[in-house]
Amino acid sequence: MKENIRSLGNITKKLIIRPIGGTEDVNKTLTVYEYGDDIIIVDCGIGFPDIFEMPGVDILIPDFSYLEKNSHKIRGLFLTHGHEDHIGAVPYLLQRIPDIPIYSSGLVQEMLRSKFEEKSFNHLKEQTKLNLFNPTSGEVTLGNFTIKGFRVFHSIPESQGFAIKTPEGLLLHMGEYKIDPKPAMEKPMNLGIIENYGKQGVLCLLSDCLMAISNKPTKSESDLDKTYLGLFKKAEGRQLIVTMISSSISRMHQVINAAVSCGRKVVVSGRSVEHTFSIARKLGYISFPKDIFVPEKEASKLPQENLVYILTGIYGQYSSSLGRLSRNENRDITLKKNAMVIFSGDPAPPGTDITVEKLTDKLILLDAEVIHGGVCDNLHVSGHGARKDMERIAKLVNPKYFIPLGGSITRMRAYRDAMGSIGFSKNNVFECLEGGSVEFSGGIAKKGSRIETQQVYINTKTASKISSVVVDDREKMSDSGIFVVVIPRDRSGRLLPNKSEIVTRGFIYVKDSKELIRKAKKAVVKSISKRGNKTKDWSSLRRRIESDIQRFLYKEVGDSPVIIVHTVGL
Amino acid sequence: MKENIRSLGNITKKLIIRPIGGTEDVNKTLTVYEYGDDIIIVDCGIGFPDIFEMPGVDILIPDFSYLEKNSHKIRGLFLTHGHEDHIGAVPYLLQRIPDIPIYSSGLVQEMLRSKFEEKSFNHLKEQTKLNLFNPTSGEVTLGNFTIKGFRVFHSIPESQGFAIKTPEGLLLHMGEYKIDPKPAMEKPMNLGIIENYGKQGVLCLLSDCLMAISNKPTKSESDLDKTYLGLFKKAEGRQLIVTMISSSISRMHQVINAAVSCGRKVVVSGRSVEHTFSIARKLGYISFPKDIFVPEKEASKLPQENLVYILTGIYGQYSSSLGRLSRNENRDITLKKNAMVIFSGDPAPPGTDITVEKLTDKLILLDAEVIHGGVCDNLHVSGHGARKDMERIAKLVNPKYFIPLGGSITRMRAYRDAMGSIGFSKNNVFECLEGGSVEFSGGIAKKGSRIETQQVYINTKTASKISSVVVDDREKMSDSGIFVVVIPRDRSGRLLPNKSEIVTRGFIYVKDSKELIRKAKKAVVKSISKRGNKTKDWSSLRRRIESDIQRFLYKEVGDSPVIIVHTVGL
Repeated sequence: MKENIRSLGNITKKLIIRPIGGTEDVNKTLTVYEYGDDIIIVDCGIGFPDIFEMPGVDILIPDFSYLEKNSHKIRGLFLTHGHEDHIGAVPYLLQRIPDIPIYSSGLVQEMLRSKFEEKSFNHLKEQTKLNLFNPTSGEVTLGNFTIKGFRVFHSIPESQGFAIKTPEGLLLHMGEYKIDPKPAMEKPMNLGIIENYGKQGVLCLLSDCLMAISNKPTKSESDLDKTYLGLFKKAEGRQLIVTMISSSISRMHQVINAAVSCGRKVVVSGRSVEHTFSIARKLGYISFPKDIFVPEKEASKLPQENLVYILTGIYGQYSSSLGRLSRNENRDITLKKNAMVIFSGDPAPPGTDITVEKLTDKLILLDAEVIHGGVCDNLHVSGHGARKDMERIAKLVNPKYFIPLGGSITRMRAYRDAMGSIGFSKNNVFECLEGGSVEFSGGIAKKGSRIETQQVYINTKTASKISSVVVDDREKMSDSGIFVVVIPRDRSGRLLPNKSEIVTRGFIYVKDSKELIRKAKKAVVKSISKRGNKTKDWSSLRRRIESDIQRFLYKEVGDSPVIIVHTVGL
Repeated sequence: MKENIRSLGNITKKLIIRPIGGTEDVNKTLTVYEYGDDIIIVDCGIGFPDIFEMPGVDILIPDFSYLEKNSHKIRGLFLTHGHEDHIGAVPYLLQRIPDIPIYSSGLVQEMLRSKFEEKSFNHLKEQTKLNLFNPTSGEVTLGNFTIKGFRVFHSIPESQGFAIKTPEGLLLHMGEYKIDPKPAMEKPMNLGIIENYGKQGVLCLLSDCLMAISNKPTKSESDLDKTYLGLFKKAEGRQLIVTMISSSISRMHQVINAAVSCGRKVVVSGRSVEHTFSIARKLGYISFPKDIFVPEKEASKLPQENLVYILTGIYGQYSSSLGRLSRNENRDITLKKNAMVIFSGDPAPPGTDITVEKLTDKLILLDAEVIHGGVCDNLHVSGHGARKDMERIAKLVNPKYFIPLGGSITRMRAYRDAMGSIGFSKNNVFECLEGGSVEFSGGIAKKGSRIETQQVYINTKTASKISSVVVDDREKMSDSGIFVVVIPRDRSGRLLPNKSEIVTRGFIYVKDSKELIRKAKKAVVKSISKRGNKTKDWSSLRRRIESDIQRFLYKEVGDSPVIIVHTVGL
């Protein structure tokens, strides 16, 4: 299709697909489609830092360098759905490259608008062009690309995939999806549309691969209805609290449904869940009579057995509403004896298992009955289809090539093996690292160039980058602390090592280690007397003193803190 | 039984059971049994630090304060089995209270002896009395306690429980166990013995509760044999690597069996697995012909398709043999293209899921086929029985009271509920927090006093404690770094704020922030001019300057590093 365009244009033109995030790790999804002088971007999400290696970092964003260099080519940014790992970095991209037209569903528009309310992003409110673009919109043509949305089912409403016509052929960007025969609020995915695209001939399928490591059948959202009703019945006469992933509108809908059928009113508490709730009500996803809902501040006045609380805190977050409740620090809600607290979510998302168990421990100590995945089945269904769903979509689409997205290398490999197992050639599955690319020319795909990408650390308080030097220093200090030696020098520039002072934190407990500090000062004196007291070549002298002190401390304490030697003059 | 002893003695005598570790978290198990002037201890393990909250801490040990205060009463330490969370803190206990007689199996003796080889514990080698005590030994009477070991089945050989006769009645300390009908190396658990104790009348059952949060049936070790044979066949002609929990002698035995039947020789690599291997061979648990084993250094000379490597690194540990291999830093082994690497262990023990996936990612990038729990079933069986096993043991023993051990509060509660579900009174299940106790008097149990316990952090390099102040400082610095202000003072003691210097790490990148540093110096000058330049009351002045700087930095950068103000004189 459109072969003519290609033959008319520059003969070296080719289609390049380049994921800049969302392949080496699960998050900060961003895929660049490039043909000639046109670029379109699909998704622009945040990532979550590895707390071991990136202390004090709030979020990660994709490395936008490549886009900044090619900003003149960017025709538009298309967003598949409203999860943070797909839209959370949009304001940061617009900070650097303003004026990118954005194409998304109404729900995503609401979510972006609320991000633009934050102080750091307030200037984006007026200048950003938000285009409503959903499966009922027509095609949009931007340079060499013609894009059409199609409905997919995921754990947030208004999720879509994109059919992207290019001079090289048709691409199907599936976004994140699962084949749920009976979703809680929405219609099941329309597999007919996907099959139709398949019949037109798809050059490349870009598919979610997150749960390619699961053999289990994909569970349906509606499986949860029975669980909720059963538990709500058991909790009769008691305080009842449900915690869930804050973006989960359909879960919220199911809980409110169960509440209504048990004659309970609903209290929503915690910033992110209140936020989802208000957008979901505004857009009509939560359309219950007004008097079903009780403001948090008034809840304590009502009989607790007539309420259901929906709280943030499913991952054990310290400042969440449930976190505060577990420490008796929630101003509006008090945990009653014998309350039932339901954790309606994955019991162990990566890295949170220990934190969640600490929270359930605290709640049990306060005499709550905690219902979690270890003692009750069917408390959670994933929004991602398991391997069988991916295989089914692949068979319907029957593409020539595949690019798995939204997973680690391990998950891309599992996806590739799955495609191999249903008869596709594994060689046609391209596992792209961050910045890597696949080039299509004459209908043939091959591995393309790879651009270098850096980790970009963000302090959300200031919406600014944190230097990797700073993050490295934090990591080192968290391991063995810091040891600062301050050496005064007189007016002539002569160092006075006998008068040096030592400041240390996180290394040894100074009150218990006066002897060590005394010896360390001696070591400074010795180091300087050996090296000569010349501040002319201060930086090389400083390095030598630092290495002497390091050797001294390792010998004495067996540990190597960050060592800083500094001089102060009068 | 022995009611006469009680009536002859002091009428206020009672039996106290006090877990000092291993109830609020899963590890650092230590239970104190006390009657009158006698104490016996069961197990003395290490714990694993929460890396978020305890940066730079290698291990945790139980708080021995109570035992130090009552050291004259201690008659003996009994060890159930050789896992680190049950025996790892023994040398640290002996450091503080020497001469405690130790009762354990031969395997545990070997493991302790090898700990005593470490430099910090060398002095314990001669002075410690290791008594061989296993299910074939007779009873041991120590003061008011008479102890007899009985065989239980767990994931390490020679595991035992203890039947403890006391003036109050018979106690059954089960240790850790599972009911495996077909273990790989050992005989199944003798449930008849346990039933017999039940018939004698058991006052209190102390049971492992770790997997009380699992409804699933307990899998048998022998289920793995088929998995290994299938995978080894698939790997024909290729390099083959298996990683496993290093203490798992039976898993090692199974892998060597499979290797022999496929005509491969075996290479063992990685400190902890080599260590287990040598003890297991010494004690006859690994009794294969000598020529089956190839030393690591010689392995590279042999055809790789004729070998099986058993490596450390199942949890993604950085310095493990597999970790080094994944970075091409293993001196003796090189990963060949198309190697098969089998992760034969729990795919997600708490806190390790992300690290393990990073390791599998690296191996896949090096063209290995990685077999893990996401793509292959039956790669791991737990050494702990699930809820059904606990219920079965409880029914056989039919005790009056229960104390769950080896789990968090969440798991103790699941155990309690399980006991309730099979007809026991939940009120007879005592959930002890660390230092909490249960007192038995006249055959009646009630909640006893609770002693305070502290977290004890250990630096294993020096085998010494790390102060909690130091750990707190590390945590703070890892979050936002450190900001040191050095203010010189002249001979008269007058501060010279204009000459102050600022040293910072992990806060801002100084090269990018010269302006901020300049402004901060001004803020110091301002703070001092406002407060008055009096070093007489230096500590209160310092606190004020620190708080001024803190306010200044928060306003400028939105972050609060650790702030230190220090003065240096000539």
